[in-house]
Amino acid sequence: MELKGIYPIVPTPFLENGEIDYPSIERLVPFMVRKRVNGLAIMGALGEGHKLIDRERTEVIAAYRRLLPDEMALIVGVRAPATHPATVMATRAQELGADAILLGPPNVQKDAALLEYYRQVSDAARIPCIIHDYPAMTGITLSVELIGRIFEISENIGHIKLEDPPTGMKMQALAPGLKVFGALGGMYALEELELGAVGVMTGFVYAELLVRLFELTQNQQWKAAADLFFDFLPLNRWEFQPGIGASLRKQVLKKLGVFSTATVRHPGQDADARTVAQLFRIVEHLRQKGYALAV
Amino acid sequence: MELKGIYPIVPTPFLENGEIDYPSIERLVPFMVRKRVNGLAIMGALGEGHKLIDRERTEVIAAYRRLLPDEMALIVGVRAPATHPATVMATRAQELGADAILLGPPNVQKDAALLEYYRQVSDAARIPCIIHDYPAMTGITLSVELIGRIFEISENIGHIKLEDPPTGMKMQALAPGLKVFGALGGMYALEELELGAVGVMTGFVYAELLVRLFELTQNQQWKAAADLFFDFLPLNRWEFQPGIGASLRKQVLKKLGVFSTATVRHPGQDADARTVAQLFRIVEHLRQKGYALAV
Amino acid sequence: MELKGIYPIVPTPFLENGEIDYPSIERLVPFMVRKRVNGLAIMGALGEGHKLIDRERTEVIAAYRRLLPDEMALIVGVRAPATHPATVMATRAQELGADAILLGPPNVQKDAALLEYYRQVSDAARIPCIIHDYPAMTGITLSVELIGRIFEISENIGHIKLEDPPTGMKMQALAPGLKVFGALGGMYALEELELGAVGVMTGFVYAELLVRLFELTQNQQWKAAADLFFDFLPLNRWEFQPGIGASLRKQVLKKLGVFSTATVRHPGQDADARTVAQLFRIVEHLRQKGYALAV
Amino acid sequence: MELKGIYPIVPTPFLENGEIDYPSIERLVPFMVRKRVNGLAIMGALGEGHKLIDRERTEVIAAYRRLLPDEMALIVGVRAPATHPATVMATRAQELGADAILLGPPNVQKDAALLEYYRQVSDAARIPCIIHDYPAMTGITLSVELIGRIFEISENIGHIKLEDPPTGMKMQALAPGLKVFGALGGMYALEELELGAVGVMTGFVYAELLVRLFELTQNQQWKAAADLFFDFLPLNRWEFQPGIGASLRKQVLKKLGVFSTATVRHPGQDADARTVAQLFRIVEHLRQKGYALAV
Repeated sequence: MELKGIYPIVPTPFLENGEIDYPSIERLVPFMVRKRVNGLAIMGALGEGHKLIDRERTEVIAAYRRLLPDEMALIVGVRAPATHPATVMATRAQELGADAILLGPPNVQKDAALLEYYRQVSDAARIPCIIHDYPAMTGITLSVELIGRIFEISENIGHIKLEDPPTGMKMQALAPGLKVFGALGGMYALEELELGAVGVMTGFVYAELLVRLFELTQNQQWKAAADLFFDFLPLNRWEFQPGIGASLRKQVLKKLGVFSTATVRHPGQDADARTVAQLFRIVEHLRQKGYALAV
Repeated sequence: MELKGIYPIVPTPFLENGEIDYPSIERLVPFMVRKRVNGLAIMGALGEGHKLIDRERTEVIAAYRRLLPDEMALIVGVRAPATHPATVMATRAQELGADAILLGPPNVQKDAALLEYYRQVSDAARIPCIIHDYPAMTGITLSVELIGRIFEISENIGHIKLEDPPTGMKMQALAPGLKVFGALGGMYALEELELGAVGVMTGFVYAELLVRLFELTQNQQWKAAADLFFDFLPLNRWEFQPGIGASLRKQVLKKLGVFSTATVRHPGQDADARTVAQLFRIVEHLRQKGYALAV
Repeated sequence: MELKGIYPIVPTPFLENGEIDYPSIERLVPFMVRKRVNGLAIMGALGEGHKLIDRERTEVIAAYRRLLPDEMALIVGVRAPATHPATVMATRAQELGADAILLGPPNVQKDAALLEYYRQVSDAARIPCIIHDYPAMTGITLSVELIGRIFEISENIGHIKLEDPPTGMKMQALAPGLKVFGALGGMYALEELELGAVGVMTGFVYAELLVRLFELTQNQQWKAAADLFFDFLPLNRWEFQPGIGASLRKQVLKKLGVFSTATVRHPGQDADARTVAQLFRIVEHLRQKGYALAV
Repeated sequence: MELKGIYPIVPTPFLENGEIDYPSIERLVPFMVRKRVNGLAIMGALGEGHKLIDRERTEVIAAYRRLLPDEMALIVGVRAPATHPATVMATRAQELGADAILLGPPNVQKDAALLEYYRQVSDAARIPCIIHDYPAMTGITLSVELIGRIFEISENIGHIKLEDPPTGMKMQALAPGLKVFGALGGMYALEELELGAVGVMTGFVYAELLVRLFELTQNQQWKAAADLFFDFLPLNRWEFQPGIGASLRKQVLKKLGVFSTATVRHPGQDADARTVAQLFRIVEHLRQKGYALAV
């Protein structure tokens, strides 16, 4: 399955008591499918993957796989403080039907250790593993040189989710052949697609806007793409606020009737009502410009 | 002098050999004055203050003070790894005519040490000291509680430059009476002004857009303010890219005939030609919408 | 069960293929019991707890509980990036017969979040939870004030494993009533016991030396205690080398016939043969001084 | 001048009002010369170099150079957040008669930037520049590969002060030809000298013990060297406590009549009286063993 296009990073819904909320997952999947995305990425940072225990991970992956059409890619976030648990997590995800792994680094700032981690985990996974390069979240810097070595050593590694800004300049420095997904909330999606990004993998709930952007860029309609992108930038910017990204997206999904609660697990921070209201005001601004967005 | 309104953080110009480029400063000041900003903030992070030696700091402050009209505030960035050099830097700035200090924390994650640093430096400065709260740059987290204690203990501290997102929620948690400047490239300027920010202090070169935004919000023209802000957001977003912010602003200023070079001191990263071209494409997009921006 | 005395932090043995090596655990427990320690602490940082998956954790805890005499405390290390998995881990440990939890902080430098994490996890655990204060390993600073608040809020928290040097000065600043275990390889054990530490909880394999030290200090034989401590300091210093602590202890245990391999899980670093030989040279030095240490 | 042997890192004395205390420097130099050290290293981390302004640096360097016999090396610590100020500091030190620079990295975890910083500063310095590899203090990791590239690219770089434990294993991995100074308070001095370290450069006040150790190892008297080292290890361990290293050494020097105060500049932490008393108790322990140490 070719990885290309728009893959929303989705939040994991919880009940008010903190347990996984499977009925909300059952609503979320068709909600996203209708936006004509190319697949879903679960248990990334936004998916609070680091707040689940192993058994929950297994059940959540299975639920998504059961609900998501076979032709749509299921991408599973894996990140662990050591190679063994990451290997088990990746292998388990593959067995449960994941199409790809979004593979974050362990907390070790040593090139040799990082290279070996990526080699071992991707070998065990036997499915594509996307390098997750997000130093602001992980604290780990992946140099262009190291990324090139990981790309060479690992048969299953051919993609990177690039969140180390300035992304445009890093993209141009990367080894040719390595396929790039834009992210960072879509803050630089237009420019990344111009530079050849194969898609965008980020948590923007109004993913239909990214889908439309991607179509326009694929058809070389750059002027229309820019007009669209500059129009919706106030919105994805607001969703992408550090610290409350998960809560805010959950609030939106709750308002839209998709999630039953906006609960985040501790120590997640809750977005307040005002921040949520400001988001819908921006949606309203876009609706007045003619965008048919749900509120 | 009341601190209120728009204060651009300006880059420090260098000649190709790395020396301070005073003629460019002589062009920069009137260039900014014409935009009707309320003052200038020099030697913040964007101003590469940490790349100057003491003698250069003194000469640069003196040059700006000489060039800047008396009624416009000169704000000088001070940050040092210890209290003594910060105290000397702040005192020196005051003697040279600075109206306020933008005071960043030392690299010590201990509340008692941070409180004492702010107390000593602001006492010595004898002019307003603005707390610089920018954890992504400094690595230091200032809690709402600590900020409240600094505000109480220091007679000269009544302002904060808030760059710890989500800024809206942190603003609302801060002690009443503490005046907030928005920053972060102006990414959340509209919402911060709505919540009562007294101004914006950031590196956006097209500061006339922030000046206009501020006027609209002061006149309670919120709809027009939002329209304006959402229009120019693609531009300030692009300028604000991490790692190349100083280089990119210098490239713009060079293109506009203000700076003679776009040199940054090592280890600053240069923005490439493509990134600069993309910036001017966004400016062009705004010009087509009717904004009279220089190119 | 009163927590008092010497609790070795023990490494988790692996087979050469990386699987848990249960026969080595079966040898390790009586090996340590013979040294007359007061209990064992498993799956601390030295125990490579962060390299195990949930199922392995359960099986390892059960194995130790089965092997360890009931009157000896089993302390289980718990640390997770979020409160829910830590709560599950702590509860599971309690159900499996753990007597106490060694509870490390999540990777969030915010007092309110840390306080709530300690409150929730210790409430759920229903057994004593020892605060693990080790900033060099966790990256998280726990201030004296925060520790005091955790101590007050949590019924199950009455102990701290203090590894934030200078430990003597921090000990004296802590709330009276909070019981302190020394650690850091035993580097300051004598001075910590003088200041009232209730014991030492560290990875020193030659734990009989700490047992003897503790007995002497309990009997107020301070001169003999100092003579002993200064004699063995070269040895525990060598074991405590950062980065190779687990490997080095495993090499010693292998040499002594306790572990079948010295395998560490990736990205653990292996101690080289020379470093191991240097360790046994120091043991030899102590034997010549009359200490009956195994080689 | 060949750099070889024992170079104490000395604290910078301050008066009670925080000003530089030159009379204490005048006592410190002969005090150290009498110990037969090979030179002095000033304004390292222990020397609170980061707490001085440029003018003070100049005056302190000049004072040491004037007081120190010509045939003894004066090594000056240089570390700055950017290349330009480091270059100026290094050049200034050379002009004032420094024999070598102890050169710490800027706060940038990028190999290319670090390489260029070391190249530029060492070229400008025109005297030997010793790489300061101390990640626990600087937060910057220097890989063996990067150190090899710095060694190759910079004519003036042939030494490293290695404080990235385990030091023995890193030493053996470094490029042949790069000369190593042990440090870390002398915690591994014996083993480092065995592996070929050319000396020790650390803050241990009782430097005569390191001088004696170095002589014994130069004469291949390994047994006597080990006996000596294991004897004094309790003492240098105590001096080397993180956070209070500078204060504690100053207290010792004050007690010995060398410094007039033990003042550290904020935010330095003061060692308490008990910690100082414990130090002299260890000295007493050594005196009873026959060591003629000053108290």
